[in-house]
Amino acid sequence: MNTDEQSIRDLVNTWHTATAAGDVEAVLKLMAEDVVFLVAGQPPMKGRSTFEKGLRGLLQTHLIESTSEIQEVEVSGTLAYCWSVLTVQIAPRAGGKPVVRTGSAVSILRKQVNGTWAVVRDANLLALVT
Amino acid sequence: MNTDEQSIRDLVNTWHTATAAGDVEAVLKLMAEDVVFLVAGQPPMKGRSTFEKGLRGLLQTHLIESTSEIQEVEVSGTLAYCWSVLTVQIAPRAGGKPVVRTGSAVSILRKQVNGTWAVVRDANLLALVT
Repeated sequence: MNTDEQSIRDLVNTWHTATAAGDVEAVLKLMAEDVVFLVAGQPPMKGRSTFEKGLRGLLQTHLIESTSEIQEVEVSGTLAYCWSVLTVQIAPRAGGKPVVRTGSAVSILRKQVNGTWAVVRDANLLALVT
Repeated sequence: MNTDEQSIRDLVNTWHTATAAGDVEAVLKLMAEDVVFLVAGQPPMKGRSTFEKGLRGLLQTHLIESTSEIQEVEVSGTLAYCWSVLTVQIAPRAGGKPVVRTGSAVSILRKQVNGTWAVVRDANLLALVT
C-alpha cells in the first residue's frame, strides 16, 4: 500500500473517531472548502460551512457512531476515490431509539498543495435499517 | 476543455442515446468488465455481464429515455470522475404510466490501455419523481 492510499485510509478513520468525539474542527480539516455532499432525494449540500452548521446542530442533540469497511482506494496523481460500506448510528442524547443507516459511500478526494488529502465530493447511498 | 474531458462528455452522451436506441452493445463498450453500480438500499451490482442481463431484460418490456446535465468532469492521469444530474424515464412498451427518477450520479472512470475512457464505478442517487 503506498503513502497516498494509507493517508486516505487514515483520513477515513479520523473522520469516524472525530465525529464520534464531537470534534467538529478535526472533521472539517478532512474536507475541501468547496466540498459537495450528495444524497438521494435531496439537493446537493454545498460547502464546508454548510456541513459544519448541520453537524454542529446534530451533535447538540445526538450522538453519532459510525464504522466503515473500506472496499477500495484508488489514486492517480492528485485525484482519488474511496468506496466504503458505512454504518452510521444516530442516537438522541436524551435517550430513545437510535436511527441506523447502512450502505455504500463513494468519496472523491483531491491532494492539497501541502500534500494532504481532502474530500471534495461525497455520494452517500446509505439506507435506513429497519 | 481538454481531450480527456471531451471524451468523457461524449461517453455520457453516447450512454444516453445508445440506451434510448436499445443498442446494448454500444452501452457495454462504455464500461469496464469489472464495473460496479451502487444504488441506495440494494447490494452492489457487480460486473458488465450482470448489467447487460438487467438492461436487456428491461428493454424487452420498457423504453428508456434519459438526459443528463453534467455538473463537472475532473481528470488526473488515468482516473476521472463525472458528476451529473440525470433524469431517467422508464415507460412500459405496452403503454401506461412511465416511472421517472431524477437526481445526481457520480461516475468514476478509468483510462484504458487503448486511450479510451470506461466507467468503473457508478453511484446512482436518483429518487422517484412523484
